[in-house]
Amino acid sequence: MSENVKINRGLKGVYFERSGVSHIDGSKGELLYRGYTIHDLAQHSSFEEVCYLLIHGELPNAGQLAEFDAALKEARALPDAIFDIIRAIKDGHPMDVLRSCVSSLAALDPASAEKGEEGFLKNGIRLTSQVPMIIAAHEAIRNGRDPVPADKTLSHAANWLWMLSGEKPSEAAARLADVDFILHAEHGANASSFAARVTVGTEANLHGAMVTALSTLAGPAHGGAAEDVMKMVTEIGTPDRAAEYVKAKRKNREAVTGFGHRVYRAEDPRARHMRDGVKKLGEEKGAPEFYQILEGVVEAMKPYARHGLNVNVDFYAGVMYQLHGIPMDLYVPIFAIGRMPGWLVQCLEQQRSNILIRPLTLYNGPDQRDYVSLKDRA
Amino acid sequence: MSENVKINRGLKGVYFERSGVSHIDGSKGELLYRGYTIHDLAQHSSFEEVCYLLIHGELPNAGQLAEFDAALKEARALPDAIFDIIRAIKDGHPMDVLRSCVSSLAALDPASAEKGEEGFLKNGIRLTSQVPMIIAAHEAIRNGRDPVPADKTLSHAANWLWMLSGEKPSEAAARLADVDFILHAEHGANASSFAARVTVGTEANLHGAMVTALSTLAGPAHGGAAEDVMKMVTEIGTPDRAAEYVKAKRKNREAVTGFGHRVYRAEDPRARHMRDGVKKLGEEKGAPEFYQILEGVVEAMKPYARHGLNVNVDFYAGVMYQLHGIPMDLYVPIFAIGRMPGWLVQCLEQQRSNILIRPLTLYNGPDQRDYVSLKDRA
Repeated sequence: MSENVKINRGLKGVYFERSGVSHIDGSKGELLYRGYTIHDLAQHSSFEEVCYLLIHGELPNAGQLAEFDAALKEARALPDAIFDIIRAIKDGHPMDVLRSCVSSLAALDPASAEKGEEGFLKNGIRLTSQVPMIIAAHEAIRNGRDPVPADKTLSHAANWLWMLSGEKPSEAAARLADVDFILHAEHGANASSFAARVTVGTEANLHGAMVTALSTLAGPAHGGAAEDVMKMVTEIGTPDRAAEYVKAKRKNREAVTGFGHRVYRAEDPRARHMRDGVKKLGEEKGAPEFYQILEGVVEAMKPYARHGLNVNVDFYAGVMYQLHGIPMDLYVPIFAIGRMPGWLVQCLEQQRSNILIRPLTLYNGPDQRDYVSLKDRA
Repeated sequence: MSENVKINRGLKGVYFERSGVSHIDGSKGELLYRGYTIHDLAQHSSFEEVCYLLIHGELPNAGQLAEFDAALKEARALPDAIFDIIRAIKDGHPMDVLRSCVSSLAALDPASAEKGEEGFLKNGIRLTSQVPMIIAAHEAIRNGRDPVPADKTLSHAANWLWMLSGEKPSEAAARLADVDFILHAEHGANASSFAARVTVGTEANLHGAMVTALSTLAGPAHGGAAEDVMKMVTEIGTPDRAAEYVKAKRKNREAVTGFGHRVYRAEDPRARHMRDGVKKLGEEKGAPEFYQILEGVVEAMKPYARHGLNVNVDFYAGVMYQLHGIPMDLYVPIFAIGRMPGWLVQCLEQQRSNILIRPLTLYNGPDQRDYVSLKDRA
């Protein structure tokens, strides 16, 4: 019961593994996926291509991309039992419903027990396509509508918007959703990816690890930022009230949502890639005021801007979802759609050189004491 | 991308938090729950009392124990939708089914969103009673039987055996199941408890943390030992073949299942408390040979016995389950029944001084490189 040990609370600064997937330089505000900057990927790539890159380590050529895309599209299918389960629990929070369905898919598909490189890959691709389908089906069912069947001619992002609304999205809207998924695809040893690795560490299967990741992402300190920003936008109401809102917050020494990130001390390099798209989507949807409120907040924050006060990736995401009429309780599930390839590749890495992840707690409870029988207790 | 950092693989030896719940001295083979030795608790206590002790830190007096026991019994109820879900996924592995049901309970019960001390406690007690009910209901449904309703006059352990088989267990059999649950109730920062803490660290709810714990326990490197021992017993077949089996294993430098533990270098202090009970249960059930095989293995291991070659807690557990006619794929779910209070109290502790648990991975991927457009790729 020695007290001379170091307690690494939150495991802050503790390295537990090497990873070749993403490189984050928080002080410079840099993010690389497999050596490519997030800026290049957000501008030139697609979510399907980024999935391939994250999983296989290299950008695909045309043939490889076509094959990978076909596998993702082929996997756009859900067993009937999943729709029954969604109906049984439709009034729950969409994250609870999504997690229950991913967990149930393990029970419904004997292939979920397959491990190793191939097993994880097959199950990971399947789940990457199934997760947006579950979310869209739940949204339909809880609103008394029939789920919209997947359209295998559409991209991952466009198909998701299609299944959600039953309307084909504009090219610009689909591209913005695509960029949103690219930006959320992977982010090092974040809590959900780390928790998934702990699950893989016991030699559990991939579905179990994904369920762990979903449980962990559901916490507002991890996946809740986009929702918080949208609540702020709603509270502010009109662009002219943004400055006043920020002033009041700062006066009370309260944080303004959407600024700063645990990892980034400089700019969150992902944020800028949502900005223009959200502005344009607001114009397309005839609702420019949401974007204007965000810009009002940025402008009003400038006097306070210093190290660590840049907007983060979730600053613009909530408004994008709002412009599509997506309810706030779907924001975290949407984060999960984007993060699927990141979770998958971290689980693949963990499995390749697997080890039980089991740190220690230092005991600070009572010393050994004698048991007292029930009749002798006060 | 500095290489001058220490990588703590598996977080072995890394302390991430203080905990007042259990004290493990692996070199001495000691385990305390809240200061009481596992020996005293296994001999004199009950699972209900141990739950109270773990959660509240002190042994209950008669009134407190009665109140706590009443709350556990009151919680022996499942919504109808859970039975529908079990039917929809009945052919899955019982751990997948259990995890899906716990996850679905979150969606079915708005109180699952309640956090803080009271919220976690209420949800934790409810789930402690519901987990054995789900396992028993699934076992009934997949065998074409109606689930056996809970009997609120029985103890936690006796009720579990009753729901599983539809037969009231003998006093000795119920006591052995009780001891089994006591021995599995809590064990420090083991992988499932740690993963649950990571989930709580994002401010997720208790159901989510329990789902994470279940996903992580499902891995054979964590929860699979009892099953492995029973497979060994089956392979050996008759007591007279035990010595030959051990000899062949040692000759091939293979491990003999059920000996040694990551944490204990000396005796696993939990093991001895199953031994006599399993022997007696074998006699009661008219099947003494399973215990005799285990004793044969222990005897045959003696020439090889040295530091770290003692039997662990799961050595006798599998035979106990076998004697009750419980199929092997229920062994890990039974471990979960016992571990519920441990998971709950670790989640309570984590929440009290909560922090995001987010370690780091050291990047060893490619340096920054230029994006090549699809048409220019080989």
